[in-house]
Formats: sequence, C-alpha cells, structure tokens
Amino acid sequence: MNNSLIYEQKIIKYSREELIKLVKKAVSTSRFEHILRVETMALRLAESYQVNLEKASIAALVHDYAKERNDQDFIDEIMSKKLDPKLLNANNAIWHGVVGAELIKDELAVWDEDILNAVRHHTTGSPKMSMLEQIIFMADYIEEGRNFNGVAEARQLTFNNLQDGVRFQIKQTIQYLIERNKNVYPSAIDTYNAWVAK
Amino acid sequence: MNNSLIYEQKIIKYSREELIKLVKKAVSTSRFEHILRVETMALRLAESYQVNLEKASIAALVHDYAKERNDQDFIDEIMSKKLDPKLLNANNAIWHGVVGAELIKDELAVWDEDILNAVRHHTTGSPKMSMLEQIIFMADYIEEGRNFNGVAEARQLTFNNLQDGVRFQIKQTIQYLIERNKNVYPSAIDTYNAWVAK
Repeated sequence: MNNSLIYEQKIIKYSREELIKLVKKAVSTSRFEHILRVETMALRLAESYQVNLEKASIAALVHDYAKERNDQDFIDEIMSKKLDPKLLNANNAIWHGVVGAELIKDELAVWDEDILNAVRHHTTGSPKMSMLEQIIFMADYIEEGRNFNGVAEARQLTFNNLQDGVRFQIKQTIQYLIERNKNVYPSAIDTYNAWVAK
Repeated sequence: MNNSLIYEQKIIKYSREELIKLVKKAVSTSRFEHILRVETMALRLAESYQVNLEKASIAALVHDYAKERNDQDFIDEIMSKKLDPKLLNANNAIWHGVVGAELIKDELAVWDEDILNAVRHHTTGSPKMSMLEQIIFMADYIEEGRNFNGVAEARQLTFNNLQDGVRFQIKQTIQYLIERNKNVYPSAIDTYNAWVAK
C-alpha cells in the first residue's frame, strides 16, 4: 500500500483496506494499479488544495469500480432505477461513470453525493464541478502512469491552479478526439463550453 | 445579375428578381453581396450534383434573410409559434437559421421544407442533410468571397465529392473554434459525430 491514510470520518462503512479489497475484486490487475495511482495523485491534489482526504481517497478508489461490467448490468440498472432513458443510447465510457455511481451505491454503500458526482463526471467532466470532482477528473488524467504528450505540462498546470488543469484537459481531450475523427460526447462539449469557451 | 435563371416551377410565388429585391431590403450591402455569391456557388454545385437549380437558388437567396433581425423578433417568433423553448437560450447564430426559416415562411411564403431545412441547418449542419442542404451548407462556406486558410482545398474536395466537403467543413470549423476557445454549439457536435466520427 502506498498510502497510510486511515478512514476516521465514517463516510463509508468500510476501512480503506476493505474498500481496496472490494475494488481489486471488481477489476483487472492493470486497472487496479491505475486506480491506486489515481488515489495517490488525488491525495496529493487534495492535500495541496485542502480538500477532504478521505473523500478524495474513496472517490479515487471507486471511480472505475464499474468499468469492467458488461453492458447488460448497466442497462438493467438504468431500467430498474428509472434513470434517464437517453442513457440507453450511451456506452461503457459514459455508463461506468453515471450508471457506475448507482452500482457503487448498491454494492459499496457509498452515499456521499460529492463522491458519487466525482464518479459520474470523471469521464467527460461537467459544467459545474466541485473541488473534489475536479481533483478526481484531474488525478485520472495525470496519474503517474500517464505518458501522453503534454502530461508534464498538465501536471504542472494542475498543481499551480486546479481550474487551469481542468481547462487544459477538457480542451486537449476534445482536440485529440477531433484530430482523430473520434466520437465526442455531447456532455464533453457542454463541459468545454462552460469551462473553456469565452 | 450574375445568373440568368428563370423560376418556372412555381416553388414560390415570386420571380427570382422579385425575391432578390425582397432579400436586398432585409440585409446590409455586404451581406447581400455574400448572398449573391452563395447563390452563384450553390447553382454551380447544384448543376454539378444534379440538384434542382431553382431550389438551390431560392435556398441560397433566403439563407441569411433573417441574419440582421434583432433578438426580440426571434424571441417573439419562438413564443408565437411555440417552437422548442430551449431555443430561447440560443443567439443570433442559431436563430437566423432555425427561427429564420419561420420568418421566411411568414414573410416570403416559402413552404418547401427542403429549402427551409437548408436554411435551418446552414450554420451548424445536421446529422442528416439532403443534397440541397449539403449544397447550401457548402456554398456558404466556399463562396468566392471566402479566403480562409484551406478554402482552395475545401472547394476542390467539395466539387470532387460533396460529402467529403461537408466532412471537411464540419471538422475544420470545430477545430477552429476550439483552438480559439470559442463556444461550440451542441448541434455542431451532433453533426460532427454523425458525419465525421468513426
């Protein structure tokens, strides 16, 4: 374990070690290692920006909890919880955040809406994001395993000014997708218009 | 007049000369000249792709008919025709197409829905566009007064394959906007996802 944080605030019913075990069972080894790196980065950012460390740890550990679930699990959850029917047109990239948050409630008993929103919005961002949401959004992007062109600049910006980091990621990601003729989620453009467009 | 086309199909109640006079009264001189250049280009494309020349002429002549109307005219039209209330959040760039089509019905008695759709969609495009819609979308982009970087390539592509031209414009326009941190209309991303994304 690369962090010695002990959960004392009773935000969830599990200890950090128990939560890590539950997450480890839900994902592949390489994704589990990514998740731990996201937690390390989220804790660094939370410390730097004076955000609740336990929430940052929990949100980071669960952010990809549902990433490897099959499509039917998400569809069942959308139906049984009467979520927005438009979600049925989405796919895993969107589902593992927005619908994943529901599975995290059901299966891990995480009820804190700030944590759940951090999960919901970690893929495309959102026009309004709390500090915790911004931290998870950025930690996922700049964790130490990432090595895309510009990652050093992204890290520097993010530790200098969290909002500048958010803007950098949003713009770079959309430019990357369009350059390669890849699909852009409408919610990612909503995020761009709110954060980047002047 | 740079074109000798005579309207014979009774698509609208006006002759081409009458329509030109009505359009001229509605816009500034520089915009009127742009409109005539769009018509010239639209007719060249319509001839090249065997699309109805009269429809191409009418759609080109009216496409910016409402561009110089004040905001209140659009808001009144949205209210009185009970158009999608979300349109109230838009601005002239969107209104002059989508709401402009309504003003064109009211004031110019243009009822052909293919022409009206060409007006509605000329700014952001649309996931599905008829040949006429594509021609107006492209003619507005590559008319002879345009001189942006890449316009020669855009013209060549468009005369070689209309759909390639449409894809080129959609991608270039969104890249241009994002490069400059400008707002991107959600409908433009819907168009991109339908036409460009693989």
